[in-house]
Amino acid sequence: MNIRTIDWKNNSVRIIDQTKLPQKLVYIDIGRLEALCRAIKILQVRGAPALGAAAALGVYLGVRDYPGSDWTGFHSKLKEAAKYVASSRPTARNLFWGIERVCDVALKNNRHPVSRIKRIILSEGKKIMQEDISSCRKIGFYGSKLLKHNSNVLTICNAGILATIDYGTALGVIYSACAEGKKIKVFSCETRPLMQGSRLSSWELYKQGVDVTMIADNTAAALMAEGKVDLVIAGADRIASNGDSANKIGTFNLAILCKYHKIPFYIAAPKSTFDFRIKSGKDIKIEMRGEKEVARILLKKDIAPPGTRVLNPAFDVTDHHLISAIITDKGIIRPPYVKNIGRAFRENKCV
Amino acid sequence: MNIRTIDWKNNSVRIIDQTKLPQKLVYIDIGRLEALCRAIKILQVRGAPALGAAAALGVYLGVRDYPGSDWTGFHSKLKEAAKYVASSRPTARNLFWGIERVCDVALKNNRHPVSRIKRIILSEGKKIMQEDISSCRKIGFYGSKLLKHNSNVLTICNAGILATIDYGTALGVIYSACAEGKKIKVFSCETRPLMQGSRLSSWELYKQGVDVTMIADNTAAALMAEGKVDLVIAGADRIASNGDSANKIGTFNLAILCKYHKIPFYIAAPKSTFDFRIKSGKDIKIEMRGEKEVARILLKKDIAPPGTRVLNPAFDVTDHHLISAIITDKGIIRPPYVKNIGRAFRENKCV
Repeated sequence: MNIRTIDWKNNSVRIIDQTKLPQKLVYIDIGRLEALCRAIKILQVRGAPALGAAAALGVYLGVRDYPGSDWTGFHSKLKEAAKYVASSRPTARNLFWGIERVCDVALKNNRHPVSRIKRIILSEGKKIMQEDISSCRKIGFYGSKLLKHNSNVLTICNAGILATIDYGTALGVIYSACAEGKKIKVFSCETRPLMQGSRLSSWELYKQGVDVTMIADNTAAALMAEGKVDLVIAGADRIASNGDSANKIGTFNLAILCKYHKIPFYIAAPKSTFDFRIKSGKDIKIEMRGEKEVARILLKKDIAPPGTRVLNPAFDVTDHHLISAIITDKGIIRPPYVKNIGRAFRENKCV
Repeated sequence: MNIRTIDWKNNSVRIIDQTKLPQKLVYIDIGRLEALCRAIKILQVRGAPALGAAAALGVYLGVRDYPGSDWTGFHSKLKEAAKYVASSRPTARNLFWGIERVCDVALKNNRHPVSRIKRIILSEGKKIMQEDISSCRKIGFYGSKLLKHNSNVLTICNAGILATIDYGTALGVIYSACAEGKKIKVFSCETRPLMQGSRLSSWELYKQGVDVTMIADNTAAALMAEGKVDLVIAGADRIASNGDSANKIGTFNLAILCKYHKIPFYIAAPKSTFDFRIKSGKDIKIEMRGEKEVARILLKKDIAPPGTRVLNPAFDVTDHHLISAIITDKGIIRPPYVKNIGRAFRENKCV
């Protein structure tokens, strides 16, 4: 089944409304910046690579109706749109990278008429989508070498089709291994509070014909102790220069459980998820989300007494010492990370 | 607020229907063995020490209407009732211990008329409740020494009032420290899939005026990394001779996270939770529960695609190497456990 998470259709950003899954597969066309940022905030569209494309197209929505033809005025509008998109969610590096890509291309072409700059921005947004399609396949190609026939893989959250344009990072590795004819068994952590593992990963793995079993996040250690997990692969929202990786809350837990059980723990992410300006995970801003996401089940029924205080960080940071390797679109990066991340992206050399 | 989880009232077992919490505090009177076993199965009453009392009273409900006066016939009925209660849930040692207690006292008194044996069985059930009230306070007394003023304690599931007669094991330690005037901050893991942490522990801690914050189970590692957790205390469902402890699924995860972060991890449980006949956790039977508990939110709304396979063990086993100490009604037991568990219960000596 071909699923496309983000596309440019009808002069709008067409996304799958992921809050409706797994019950309904609903596409929505978004033509306004404000609506797109709301869709990002409420997680109708989510996943770091998908947010990169959504953010770039969002900036275009913000500037396309600018009526003037002067660069100065247009540039103000562009900065305003960029700032607005940047305020939607703080953790995923790709979102900011997508904004920077379209702003940079606009600046570089500021000698052109405004109408042409607008077309260049849209074209850059489409290019980001094309690049994601290609880079996910590269991640899949490199990562699938780590999976054997009959490997049992545990994953968390959704780093699949629904987190990218159409293939996935962590799940892309699995799709790639399956396409090579390897039999892969996947355990999908449900991923409280918002259940991306059960709602999204189980859904797309099932649609792609992959053998998937869902577990409560709490079951991971028991499963590992029984020898049922050969490796863990997770996506990432932002990776520091030393390899520290922010990803969905609970990822750090899995990495520690892997260390204890001597199971490899992999991160899969494209270059656009790396933040070369920060040294370590300490500099990553972790988004804190509303209490009701935890205190209410899918925001509807109270599962805690009214007034219960809740701490709801959306992400955690996994120390690079716990990461066996980072699977990227440039190849597999192994420790020592400071050196090898630099080499991989500067010299295109992976070990 | 005084809360009594199990009592003998109106010739019935009066329990709080815990499936109705936190929305409603509902007491139900159960006068039939079958209804009581159903209440155990669907977790209207749960928690290892509470199950010990419920099982003993359940056996009484099963035999009290025996019409004959012959020991042989009564003994058959007693065994039948015991077997029926024993089939309700497999993991909590206390449940079997409660059944054995009332069966043993009946056998020891088999020279008496059947009507008197029935009274002796009921009286033993009431004695079990009294002993639990006392042993939880002892656990609280011994355990509170491990908590300092301003300690931050993380706990999982519910090992509180609602898991015992009226005080708790892990939460009893917290209540005891609070009663001594210590300021304690509690983090309650929500405890997927059935949310005993958010529904029950948050509820009773709040009612008792304890400072409680709820987290998704996935948040535990991030919280520890931030230095916000000084110690973890969990209850237990069955403890092997070597200290391996079965408890709610997710407990083992916390113990591993504690080891990584160098945080003490404690188990709190009465003597009746110890299974001296088994050497290690490998011999503990783990209850597997229905898929829908995970695939549906509180059994109502699908959160996974229909047909999703789910693995839903209710408990996991924490290796004794990960347990800093076991807080019991006889005192605090520290490693080496094989030796010190024996000493504690044979010679009443704790180190």
